[in-house]
Amino acid sequence: MSEFSLIKQYFTRETKHSDLGVGDDCALVQVANNIQLAISTDMLVAGTHFFADAAPYDIGWKSLAVNISDMAAMGANPKWATLAIALPNADEAWLSEFSRGFFACADAFNVDLIGGDTTRGALNIGVTIMGEVPIGKALRRDGAKIGDDIWVSGNLGSAALGLAHLQAKIVLNDGLDACLNALHHPTPRVSLGLALRNLAHSCIDISDGLLADLGHILAQSNLGATIELEQIPCLEHTKNQLENPIYQTAVLVGGDDYELCFTAPKNKRADIRKIAQDLRLNLTPIGQIHAKNTFNNNNLTVFPFEFQNLTVLKCQKPLLIDSKGFDHFAT
Amino acid sequence: MSEFSLIKQYFTRETKHSDLGVGDDCALVQVANNIQLAISTDMLVAGTHFFADAAPYDIGWKSLAVNISDMAAMGANPKWATLAIALPNADEAWLSEFSRGFFACADAFNVDLIGGDTTRGALNIGVTIMGEVPIGKALRRDGAKIGDDIWVSGNLGSAALGLAHLQAKIVLNDGLDACLNALHHPTPRVSLGLALRNLAHSCIDISDGLLADLGHILAQSNLGATIELEQIPCLEHTKNQLENPIYQTAVLVGGDDYELCFTAPKNKRADIRKIAQDLRLNLTPIGQIHAKNTFNNNNLTVFPFEFQNLTVLKCQKPLLIDSKGFDHFAT
Repeated sequence: MSEFSLIKQYFTRETKHSDLGVGDDCALVQVANNIQLAISTDMLVAGTHFFADAAPYDIGWKSLAVNISDMAAMGANPKWATLAIALPNADEAWLSEFSRGFFACADAFNVDLIGGDTTRGALNIGVTIMGEVPIGKALRRDGAKIGDDIWVSGNLGSAALGLAHLQAKIVLNDGLDACLNALHHPTPRVSLGLALRNLAHSCIDISDGLLADLGHILAQSNLGATIELEQIPCLEHTKNQLENPIYQTAVLVGGDDYELCFTAPKNKRADIRKIAQDLRLNLTPIGQIHAKNTFNNNNLTVFPFEFQNLTVLKCQKPLLIDSKGFDHFAT
Repeated sequence: MSEFSLIKQYFTRETKHSDLGVGDDCALVQVANNIQLAISTDMLVAGTHFFADAAPYDIGWKSLAVNISDMAAMGANPKWATLAIALPNADEAWLSEFSRGFFACADAFNVDLIGGDTTRGALNIGVTIMGEVPIGKALRRDGAKIGDDIWVSGNLGSAALGLAHLQAKIVLNDGLDACLNALHHPTPRVSLGLALRNLAHSCIDISDGLLADLGHILAQSNLGATIELEQIPCLEHTKNQLENPIYQTAVLVGGDDYELCFTAPKNKRADIRKIAQDLRLNLTPIGQIHAKNTFNNNNLTVFPFEFQNLTVLKCQKPLLIDSKGFDHFAT
């Protein structure tokens, strides 16, 4: 099977928002007046982001979903994606399932695949996503304000617990399906991002773990925060085992949930609860934004990197944490 | 070195065309009225597209240059790029040289790096490029017309001969520097693409080899073509050895030159020669577009895929060729 027939068979579909899609040197799209284009890229590597023998349908879904999640985190409306994929060989059964999963996600979020590249190499998937946001309405990381509530959507820790189960570090019984579903089939919170455009001061998607990602908001907003462990939403099964370090770590620093963490002024609480109702999606306040270092004294662990201005309370007392968010190059 | 400090140190620069660059979930760019956005992506894999031990400066330059070349081939003005890179480890000497080469190319073509992803894995570089083109002015593959001249820029075969030398298949003496430069440091023909917007009927960059890439124009325009081997521009040293199959193959099917192949009506010859003069870049007519299958008879090899409607004349006689353009998955 040649590269060109491979692209034609598995990756060419009619597009909805594009003047020219797959098959030329570039795709062509037209952007409306008064619109900013939001652009993001993510690379998924076999062995690092997924098991090489994972179900190709799930890999296809997830490789697009994690990119769409970056659109959600900006309050942008995803429209176009490119796919660059390196494969050890042109395994048609694998490609068929991968492309089915990829397009299932594209269809679910109304995204056009408009171009890409296929090549031979160790399994590696690079997706670039583009979408639209009205000028000035994007939800940035640097907009948090003192006094903001900190909210998260859905449940945290599920994907990390699903992974821990697959790695035989824990045995999940209750909650196994939900955790594996969170790991393999994340749902980007696009509708939530769109609904938050005029409400939230800052927003990020939780891909590297709550502490790391909230830490990015704090670093870029030059502020501090305090959150309460007991308030962090997680599965009932997880909540009951929060004394177990594996479960606690999953909730606080486990990545791959792709829920949104956002900050909003207190006077927007009713609006946010209305959004939760409309979207049938749990939105939970977990703490407050404040000036830097409110809790900084020698009784506390000094967290590395971006955690220094983030305090986690457990039963009203600061929690000592020496773990950290997922970092691909930290040694 | 953490992922975040790696990005900050090596891949964060002031941007020229962007509302928000590296450091949030997405970059934000604003596109002017009456503009189409042109978008393309290419992935470079160690061992497939470059030697793993190649100079990282060259890898950095080339990974962006080959993407910019797709802009050139559309007549688009490149403006923004994202970079997704998988690395076995955070080798700072390598990263420093790679980013120096990448930004040298970005500076040369006035492109902003606006986002990306770094991860651990086998060395793999994915770049997505975006640029602008006035609506309806893009140089597409499907626009060739019967009677068009076929032109190519620069010299062909140099990059393939440089590679053959490194693989010890040939020993280059004369022309070695030029061939290695073509291989490692290709110059995307952006100015030429822009100049051709109102002249050319179709255009493609020669990344997979002249026959394969001209074949794409023919397939998408549903036409045929005849070109003359003796007219194809190449280095003097190469021209003298065209009886040698390695040299002949390099010129006809060798990839990686990133010159442009375009078609234009005969009444534009003077305009095109003026562009060549202004840009100090050789532009050479190598043949003609005609209806499909003019030469199709049983005396000719039936070429695979897209070569079936393309005839190469050598000393006025059709050349038999059983090689084909570079195809990452053909067996």
